Amino acid sequence: MVGGGQLARMTHEAGIPLGIRFRLLSGAPQDSAALVAHDVVVGDHRDLGTLREFARGCDVITFDHEHVPTEHLRALEADGVAVRPGPDALVHAQDKGVMRARLDGIGVPCPRHRVVRDPADTAAFAQEISSPGGDGPDGGTGSGTSVAGSGEGSGTAAQVPADGAFPVPVVLKTVRGGYDGKGVWVVRSRDEAAEPFKAGVPVLAEEKVDFARELAACVVRSPHGQAVAYPVVESVQVGGVCDTVIAPAPGLPGEEAVRAQELALRIADELGVVGHMAVELFETHDGRVLVNELAMRPHNSGHWTQDGAVTSQFANHLRAVLDLPLGDPRPRARWTVMANVLGGDYPDMYSAYRHCMARDPRLKIHMYGKDVKPGRKVGHVNTYGDDLDDVRERAAHAAGYLRGTITE
Amino acid sequence: MVGGGQLARMTHEAGIPLGIRFRLLSGAPQDSAALVAHDVVVGDHRDLGTLREFARGCDVITFDHEHVPTEHLRALEADGVAVRPGPDALVHAQDKGVMRARLDGIGVPCPRHRVVRDPADTAAFAQEISSPGGDGPDGGTGSGTSVAGSGEGSGTAAQVPADGAFPVPVVLKTVRGGYDGKGVWVVRSRDEAAEPFKAGVPVLAEEKVDFARELAACVVRSPHGQAVAYPVVESVQVGGVCDTVIAPAPGLPGEEAVRAQELALRIADELGVVGHMAVELFETHDGRVLVNELAMRPHNSGHWTQDGAVTSQFANHLRAVLDLPLGDPRPRARWTVMANVLGGDYPDMYSAYRHCMARDPRLKIHMYGKDVKPGRKVGHVNTYGDDLDDVRERAAHAAGYLRGTITE
Repeated sequence: MVGGGQLARMTHEAGIPLGIRFRLLSGAPQDSAALVAHDVVVGDHRDLGTLREFARGCDVITFDHEHVPTEHLRALEADGVAVRPGPDALVHAQDKGVMRARLDGIGVPCPRHRVVRDPADTAAFAQEISSPGGDGPDGGTGSGTSVAGSGEGSGTAAQVPADGAFPVPVVLKTVRGGYDGKGVWVVRSRDEAAEPFKAGVPVLAEEKVDFARELAACVVRSPHGQAVAYPVVESVQVGGVCDTVIAPAPGLPGEEAVRAQELALRIADELGVVGHMAVELFETHDGRVLVNELAMRPHNSGHWTQDGAVTSQFANHLRAVLDLPLGDPRPRARWTVMANVLGGDYPDMYSAYRHCMARDPRLKIHMYGKDVKPGRKVGHVNTYGDDLDDVRERAAHAAGYLRGTITE
Repeated sequence: MVGGGQLARMTHEAGIPLGIRFRLLSGAPQDSAALVAHDVVVGDHRDLGTLREFARGCDVITFDHEHVPTEHLRALEADGVAVRPGPDALVHAQDKGVMRARLDGIGVPCPRHRVVRDPADTAAFAQEISSPGGDGPDGGTGSGTSVAGSGEGSGTAAQVPADGAFPVPVVLKTVRGGYDGKGVWVVRSRDEAAEPFKAGVPVLAEEKVDFARELAACVVRSPHGQAVAYPVVESVQVGGVCDTVIAPAPGLPGEEAVRAQELALRIADELGVVGHMAVELFETHDGRVLVNELAMRPHNSGHWTQDGAVTSQFANHLRAVLDLPLGDPRPRARWTVMANVLGGDYPDMYSAYRHCMARDPRLKIHMYGKDVKPGRKVGHVNTYGDDLDDVRERAAHAAGYLRGTITE
């Protein structure tokens, strides 16, 4: 597995009972997964020579992140390395522009979007999506949600007020490299739109969807085409970072859940995904879903499966990339809640860790072995049971106590 | 952890989510746990210098087996190393003579027993336990089950027939070093009793209990005295090796289960055990229990907890030896069954492994990364559910298929 973060750490953990010999390419010897894996290569995942040397002797290579350059993955495939997911699939999780174009092409509902050149072009995009003659916000019909460029952005920019304020807010994203809210901006004027272009990389503009909540549909697919779908979950974000995941999503009608699962399975099939894929969704106030992001690896929205499903996302990711039969994705409890543990002001969590174990003997703690820094994901907790209020309270209390925001 | 077997492998696995940095002392670099742990020291656990060097920088040392010499453990304690369980407790799992004497002393029911010097003394023991004037077999009352030595064994040996046949069979055990049926003999005559004495080590004689079945009561105890008891399980042995464990023991009346749990908790407390302890029990036909063996480490009879309990024996062993609050030992399913996977005639299990995953997507496979040799424990499977017959069939089928005794 390329990448030494907590996803690799937990994938190694899941591979032990499967009898899998796990080799890790880690950026540093103190990375989360490097602390617990036996066979650790320290090296740069952006260097093709390093990747080639690493892949020698591996049956399959897979990833803890999306940051390996697509051209390197193609070179490895050309060498005969089994790269899973392969570059033709993974590029859709690496490049948001490619992802949006492809999802449009297969009729998957997305927020309206187009690649924009500069603040003026962004202003034009804002005008286009607010125009009463065009599709209004949330007016996507499930296909062809891309907004055609307006030729010269400055041509339509004249329609916006002199202070550069947009008629509707716009979400700008760098097409590559963003995660956990990084590389994402919500802008309301030409002035605010300046920042995202400073890095000189392509920028995607999207409508800011007035969603009711965020959901995630996670699926796992094998090279031979077997696929399983986990229950659709609700993902609660705070400051652009996943805070809590509730499995299954409370109050989601069964037929809507099945539609979201089918959508994720269809995307996995159309894109040729191998391994775990999380499809992050916006649920609109009228019960439709729009695809927000794709991640082709184990994902934060699937951490609940470690304690809440028959087979965890990590075990199923390994089974998929090794083309083994997949495990049962069904839940083991009526409700499972995952809460992320973020670093707080105190670097030493030990006392809080002991407190949480003593307070709740059923609590499932998952620590990543990382140094604590404010706001950094350093672990998560899972709770499960029949009473959702109780299960949520236990998870939120433990995560808050570990962070230091709850002290009693 | 000292010892590189599968118990250490699964303890490391359980320590990853707890954020524990796990250092292993392994006899060989290819040992089961050494394949998956990061921090591996290869060395001999019988060498005090090696143990001292290994323990440097560890907060606590614990064990995957009972084979570290008691005097080395005392030396480490004298150095200030936290040894858990400590030598004063662990000696009861290392030396069956010490264990029997201590259990007698605290009134714990055991098979009748005494240390014997030679075949003639063994014959005398057989005579003593069969004598109508004394306690008959199964006549132990729960305390004072030791049989006093007869002074000169040869004095009573004259009472046995000329061919040396015993009136009742006797179990002989070397007081140290046995496991999985090794170091244990059932003898019916003076001739048969010769073998166990050949090694020149002390031998314990025990009555052969006509038990209805074998049970195990597993408990975990912390240095500060917190303790938890797992449900009492039934352990089905084949050829002296654990074959299947059923949790909870079917048909065991609630009050008997609680008495067995209380017995195990009392032994843990009296002996000052820290960590997981398995108390292997004989259940007699009239519903009493006699203690067969003690193991002070994670144990085969607790492997079901990985998938069947809120907190596994491995996680709770770590929590105990680190003096962290213990996790909930309660079951997650109505029935959980563990079946050991023994090596068969085919060294490559891969095809069978794939078959079992495909046949039963709910099957939980735990492989130890060991080379397959006939009769060697190379893994186990866990199954769980509401229907015991179904759960047993699934476990037995998978274990048999992996071994090669079932081919369809």
